Amino acid sequence: MIQSDPHPFAFELLATDGRARRGRIRTPHGFVDTPAFMPVGTRATVKGLTAAQLRDTGAQIILANTYHLLLRPGPDEVQRLGGLQTLTNWRGPMLTDSGGFQVFSLNDLRKVDDDGATFQSHIDGAIIRLTPESAMQIQQQLGADIIMAFDECPPLPAEGAVVERAVRRSIDWARRCREAHRIPHQALYGIVQGGLDVGLRRRCLAALTEIGFEGYALGGLSVGEPPPQMWAFLDEFAHEMPVDRPRYLMGVGTPRDLVEAVNAGIDQFDCVLPTRNGRKGYAFTSQGVIRLKNAVHRGDAGPLDPACDCETCRGYSRGYLRHLFIVEEALGPTLVSIHNLAFYQRLMREMRAAIAEQRFAAWRQSFLQGPLAQARKEEE
Amino acid sequence: MIQSDPHPFAFELLATDGRARRGRIRTPHGFVDTPAFMPVGTRATVKGLTAAQLRDTGAQIILANTYHLLLRPGPDEVQRLGGLQTLTNWRGPMLTDSGGFQVFSLNDLRKVDDDGATFQSHIDGAIIRLTPESAMQIQQQLGADIIMAFDECPPLPAEGAVVERAVRRSIDWARRCREAHRIPHQALYGIVQGGLDVGLRRRCLAALTEIGFEGYALGGLSVGEPPPQMWAFLDEFAHEMPVDRPRYLMGVGTPRDLVEAVNAGIDQFDCVLPTRNGRKGYAFTSQGVIRLKNAVHRGDAGPLDPACDCETCRGYSRGYLRHLFIVEEALGPTLVSIHNLAFYQRLMREMRAAIAEQRFAAWRQSFLQGPLAQARKEEE
Repeated sequence: MIQSDPHPFAFELLATDGRARRGRIRTPHGFVDTPAFMPVGTRATVKGLTAAQLRDTGAQIILANTYHLLLRPGPDEVQRLGGLQTLTNWRGPMLTDSGGFQVFSLNDLRKVDDDGATFQSHIDGAIIRLTPESAMQIQQQLGADIIMAFDECPPLPAEGAVVERAVRRSIDWARRCREAHRIPHQALYGIVQGGLDVGLRRRCLAALTEIGFEGYALGGLSVGEPPPQMWAFLDEFAHEMPVDRPRYLMGVGTPRDLVEAVNAGIDQFDCVLPTRNGRKGYAFTSQGVIRLKNAVHRGDAGPLDPACDCETCRGYSRGYLRHLFIVEEALGPTLVSIHNLAFYQRLMREMRAAIAEQRFAAWRQSFLQGPLAQARKEEE
Repeated sequence: MIQSDPHPFAFELLATDGRARRGRIRTPHGFVDTPAFMPVGTRATVKGLTAAQLRDTGAQIILANTYHLLLRPGPDEVQRLGGLQTLTNWRGPMLTDSGGFQVFSLNDLRKVDDDGATFQSHIDGAIIRLTPESAMQIQQQLGADIIMAFDECPPLPAEGAVVERAVRRSIDWARRCREAHRIPHQALYGIVQGGLDVGLRRRCLAALTEIGFEGYALGGLSVGEPPPQMWAFLDEFAHEMPVDRPRYLMGVGTPRDLVEAVNAGIDQFDCVLPTRNGRKGYAFTSQGVIRLKNAVHRGDAGPLDPACDCETCRGYSRGYLRHLFIVEEALGPTLVSIHNLAFYQRLMREMRAAIAEQRFAAWRQSFLQGPLAQARKEEE
């Protein structure tokens, strides 16, 4: 049943199977079936795809990055152009991160203190200050349906004291975000930090649930640690997150990561992997990862994936896609990104169906025996 | 009335208005309304557009370049992958040039003799020989509906002797192409050379019509001469080309070029201008040429062209398109190419309707007073 929140954001848990959950998020711009994968539109564009192509992949919600949009075109201009949904012509549910992750991972010219972070724009050298309050203000101007608290995300491995300080700051900043939050129809998610230290994560989660958020995210994972460590952590921790709120694992991941995280009880994901790998000519298929530049695909009239019904697989051969990559034509990255996103959405649909039909454990076992269980985050 | 040719290629003249012609070409892959503009898919891809997006612009026929496909992926591979229509998923009518123009305009390592041209591949250094016979063989493998005779195309201005020799060779090579032509359902067009010398063009045309082709093209124009010289030449010459065959002006041009050429009796055009300019952020609109990188478009929530109903103008603002170009996102070139191609197709539709309704002279006068009459071939 949709919760009777005063604002239209709501999360409905439709079914559980073990710890895996099948649910639905309501937003002002439409519904999102969970577990959900969110394609990443870094600079308000999922690279190389029109909004119509993105919809055809089966995506229901997309993400945009506050850090990048803050630099260009700037929140004032996004607001003047009608907000992210109008700007991108996506029109469906959207989520923005807080900018924190990029400040800590991309910007070498940052200075962090207890009040926030200061960094220099690599575009024009401007000095920019990001605080919990400004992160809320900027995300309010961008206008996504789901916005994220401003947090500190240290790369792993990190020393205990560094992780502890990040947790302390993230809790303090989350409280300030909650207080600065002004738009009732924008759902605000808190972000749990704490590295792989379950005790620290529990303390962080307890503090955040006391403040109260519309959803809870796990930050600071898939940032350098071996995947099995993340899977083990998720198994131990994800199910402790509030049952009645969406659980969002940020920046993850490979198909195997998604399956293990759903198995542990996660509802939402975002990752650049399907589009970044697509631009390099790496395709996720039911038969494993395909590297289109390999000579074996020369003259191959078959589709990328015979099990796929996406626009790319319906219309274009491996041999043609390989040609596009060899001659460096823009259509190659677009077509393989379309396929990879459709592949990810099909994976999520399969998991949602398996959970709803109480056969997720068997589905997962079958996946683990298949070729995709070995796909890595980095292809070379 | 469709001509009762033994093969399915046919040209039907539906209406004339002055020298302007409204017609229809029948090909094995469908009909083409003339005057027709053919987008250029150099390497078997109209840069950045899927076949579906290309169809949505209103295009009925596209062109691919034999020279580029000869280098990569090679005619054997195109044939193995089902020919150009299957390869590109375009499925509609297609035309290939002979490779001659690119050998003469792109390749500095060429040697031409009376038998053909030899050049070195810039990809792998391979020595490649192109003759009338091999140009026919390659285009047969590529499988377009309309193929072009192999000709010599000297850049203008050129000395009289150079142009004369090119005419002599082009006639001789056209005869050899006709003799080497094997596939009855591929229409073969002859190419009239002769620079801006009407007498020489007449001699060339007379020789070609004696050989007999399914259509006649004007080559060697828009290769450096001032546009008014080309327009004056077309006024004097185009109407002398056979009435019962399509007349194709190769590699042209600006909106004004198309209007003047249609006025002179031309039926078919191809040009990279809408896509090349689109990739640079120059849009053809009913209000004139728009340079999206100009600061005036920052924050502009209006469409590229309020008179346009293309995918780009229906969904995306000038301010967003400018953002995409400023941050160098691939979606910008794709969306503006879509718009420019839709703009060109609308221009052709308007001309076809004006001819059919016997009001082309008035339509042209109105065009000449509008902002698009001044659009140049090169934008800076």
